[in-house]
Amino acid sequence: MWKPDRTSKKPLYQQISEQMERRMLYGEFPPGSFLPSERRLADLIGVNRSTVVQAYAELRAKGIVESTTGSGTMVSKQAWGPADGLSPNWRNYVEGGTFAPNLPLIRRIREVLRVKAPVIDFASGELSPDLFPNAAVKQLLKQAPFEATLGYDDPQGYLPLRQSLVPFLEQRLNIRTTESSILITSGSQQSLYLITQCLLAPGDAVAIEDPSYAYSLPMFQSAGLRLFPLPVQEDGIQPEDIISLFRQHRIRMLFLNPNFQNPTGSILHPSRRAQLLRIAAELGIPLVEDDPFSLTSFYGELPQSLKSIDTHGSVLYVGSLSKIAASGFRIGWLIAPQSVVGRLADARQQMDFGLSVIPQWLANEFISSSLFDEHIGLLRQSLAAKQREMMACLRRELGDEVQFVPAHGGLNLWCKLHSAVDDFKLLEECIKRGVVFMPGTVFGSRPGHVRLSFARPGLNEIGHGIAQFARALRSLL
Amino acid sequence: MWKPDRTSKKPLYQQISEQMERRMLYGEFPPGSFLPSERRLADLIGVNRSTVVQAYAELRAKGIVESTTGSGTMVSKQAWGPADGLSPNWRNYVEGGTFAPNLPLIRRIREVLRVKAPVIDFASGELSPDLFPNAAVKQLLKQAPFEATLGYDDPQGYLPLRQSLVPFLEQRLNIRTTESSILITSGSQQSLYLITQCLLAPGDAVAIEDPSYAYSLPMFQSAGLRLFPLPVQEDGIQPEDIISLFRQHRIRMLFLNPNFQNPTGSILHPSRRAQLLRIAAELGIPLVEDDPFSLTSFYGELPQSLKSIDTHGSVLYVGSLSKIAASGFRIGWLIAPQSVVGRLADARQQMDFGLSVIPQWLANEFISSSLFDEHIGLLRQSLAAKQREMMACLRRELGDEVQFVPAHGGLNLWCKLHSAVDDFKLLEECIKRGVVFMPGTVFGSRPGHVRLSFARPGLNEIGHGIAQFARALRSLL
Repeated sequence: MWKPDRTSKKPLYQQISEQMERRMLYGEFPPGSFLPSERRLADLIGVNRSTVVQAYAELRAKGIVESTTGSGTMVSKQAWGPADGLSPNWRNYVEGGTFAPNLPLIRRIREVLRVKAPVIDFASGELSPDLFPNAAVKQLLKQAPFEATLGYDDPQGYLPLRQSLVPFLEQRLNIRTTESSILITSGSQQSLYLITQCLLAPGDAVAIEDPSYAYSLPMFQSAGLRLFPLPVQEDGIQPEDIISLFRQHRIRMLFLNPNFQNPTGSILHPSRRAQLLRIAAELGIPLVEDDPFSLTSFYGELPQSLKSIDTHGSVLYVGSLSKIAASGFRIGWLIAPQSVVGRLADARQQMDFGLSVIPQWLANEFISSSLFDEHIGLLRQSLAAKQREMMACLRRELGDEVQFVPAHGGLNLWCKLHSAVDDFKLLEECIKRGVVFMPGTVFGSRPGHVRLSFARPGLNEIGHGIAQFARALRSLL
Repeated sequence: MWKPDRTSKKPLYQQISEQMERRMLYGEFPPGSFLPSERRLADLIGVNRSTVVQAYAELRAKGIVESTTGSGTMVSKQAWGPADGLSPNWRNYVEGGTFAPNLPLIRRIREVLRVKAPVIDFASGELSPDLFPNAAVKQLLKQAPFEATLGYDDPQGYLPLRQSLVPFLEQRLNIRTTESSILITSGSQQSLYLITQCLLAPGDAVAIEDPSYAYSLPMFQSAGLRLFPLPVQEDGIQPEDIISLFRQHRIRMLFLNPNFQNPTGSILHPSRRAQLLRIAAELGIPLVEDDPFSLTSFYGELPQSLKSIDTHGSVLYVGSLSKIAASGFRIGWLIAPQSVVGRLADARQQMDFGLSVIPQWLANEFISSSLFDEHIGLLRQSLAAKQREMMACLRRELGDEVQFVPAHGGLNLWCKLHSAVDDFKLLEECIKRGVVFMPGTVFGSRPGHVRLSFARPGLNEIGHGIAQFARALRSLL
């Protein structure tokens, strides 16, 4: 991101106006489009708002931007060359398009995080940078021999990685599969996207957990799917609920996250797993098992995955490195019957021509080395410690206002607030105090819930963050 | 890919039947699905067809597969455990789904290439492995300091790479842009996919070159777009054609590849470029400039890009490393107004959560080092030499049957056949002789054209490949 040069003799406002003029001239802001608001630009480049006000005033004086009441600062349609502002109406295009934009709450949180002012981040369901296997990656980049070819990869993904995943999944999760049943994806998000695009049609009914991550995904909406909720209790969903949903709506697919469910942290009760699979098989409904967290299990007990006991072949299994190693690999896997893998691989060729072989090669080196087990051991300890710290702080600061069940794995603590507060207001109060979190409504829950990720902030940030969160909450009570 | 162990005492057919049983048991082929045909499996694992016939007979004798007349070998619905073959009807799902599958001709070619029997590949529009910057990549992996964070990347892509692209594009292609106008994509394919999904709606009319790569892309069909052709002559399209198309169909976007057009190799005449931009601006139509080949220019003259003379801000510029360095990077860039970049970046978060930082880091090291210029110099020489060799062989073998205009850049030679032959038949005759190519109809052209990539085969394979192609063609005359 460009920043003005504070050592230069040229005044800041003038540096900014020249930079903005260049950005207009080079087409970043074509005629008729709007510049960032003064406040936003000031945040982004780290200056006072008044400096940007002065810079924009200079651009207005030159006649290359206009202020339009209410909508901000528009690039003039007249001032750019002989064509007198002929150019596409980009707003029209940007607001058209099939694919749905992200939820406003999520865009707001992302924007705050993007500016990278010091914000304590309880919102991102991601590991903190110190938990990534940075040292392992550096070591492997320097030492592992890169022998992969740099051409287009196999549409199903890098074969050595698929071959390594077969014993990896069998030894760690008791999942037996074959290299040709595996599609390497750029993470669970892409696995789910391919499933919704290639196996379902607009108008299809699908069942998702309530609350669940799936609610936060415009991809379901973009695919035109009708979503029906399966309520999640402390022990997960009730399998019988599927039967009545099926009778009423002809459900075509189930999306479940049985282990350390996002956002509730719940574990589907072992006794319900066989029953769930039997019901899915009897109704002939495929079941997408989203399983990003199993290997984070803090105390080592791994709940059985549905895939490992799926005798009917109903389960599409979705896993990834994002939550157990680093999201920056962009490496996930989908296990599915050959016909499904083939169809999805073919479609992905059309969307992005597959993944780069480089992170696949690196991921393969990583999961095949002893570095992986070292990493996962440290990760589990650290996540457990972070959750303990968060729970202690919550009890201290908000013991009377917040209720939660400790998670045994995953990255999040799901909290019920005793008093109902407005999600948007609570978020804005928190942002003012340098903290972000995910409101429960993002996951489709009733108001009065929040998801606090303990994985993302540093252990020593959690106390201050929870104190600020508590202040924000109390300011609204 | 699993292969039977030829040193084992266990007969091949038995190894195969056991392996297939495992693949069924593990869910790769669930009850009711079909095993690969005997011929296909034999090709894939490198045995005689009769061995597979014997293996399948054993599986039939065990009752776990059934032969169904005409459709092949089906996994029995009865033989798998207590559930009596309850499982989803996968075929139903695989054939549903919104996203269109690839063209049959393309799937056929990919299948042939995937088996990796020795095939001379004139079909893939890709560099040969020896033209990839393998040594540079190995050197950078070992030596360049990896300092990037392994978290989710900026939705627009790795900032240092965007920053390096600004001078890269200005110095090499005279394109002036800003880091915040650049979206890093996983290649041109993803740039085009995001544009069709986010800026256009089903039913929208768009104009594409005829013939063009765009015809081979089910993504246009999946997005529900109506395609209207702009005929490509030796000097590219006629800009006035856009006006009449616009009047008739309310064209909403233009997709053009002005430099070394795929498949024809043509260069849009310099005198038509300003006119084209004026017409697009007057009609208010965005113009997508797909420019994968400019830097391959064999003799160093770089035709102006439309983006570099776009005073109206009508051009969305699409570039990538795939054709100038290696497709395995999966690195491309889209240059667009800020509002467009923001919309596309947001949607991509939903589809795959963005790119891995690892290949972006590597691409940045590569384009910022002197290794890039060394590489591109060798690449241009080699491509020119390969085209010369191909043209000499074609003149020798098929001087009376084939006509072409030498390309000045790009990877392909576009050939007109004097006698009309059936595309499918010619392709199958070539496959029999160990050669593949792209029939012109894949690009929407009338029959009687073929696209021969000279970039993909080795220089010393071209002669034999063209001789076999000539034999295949003559067998049909």
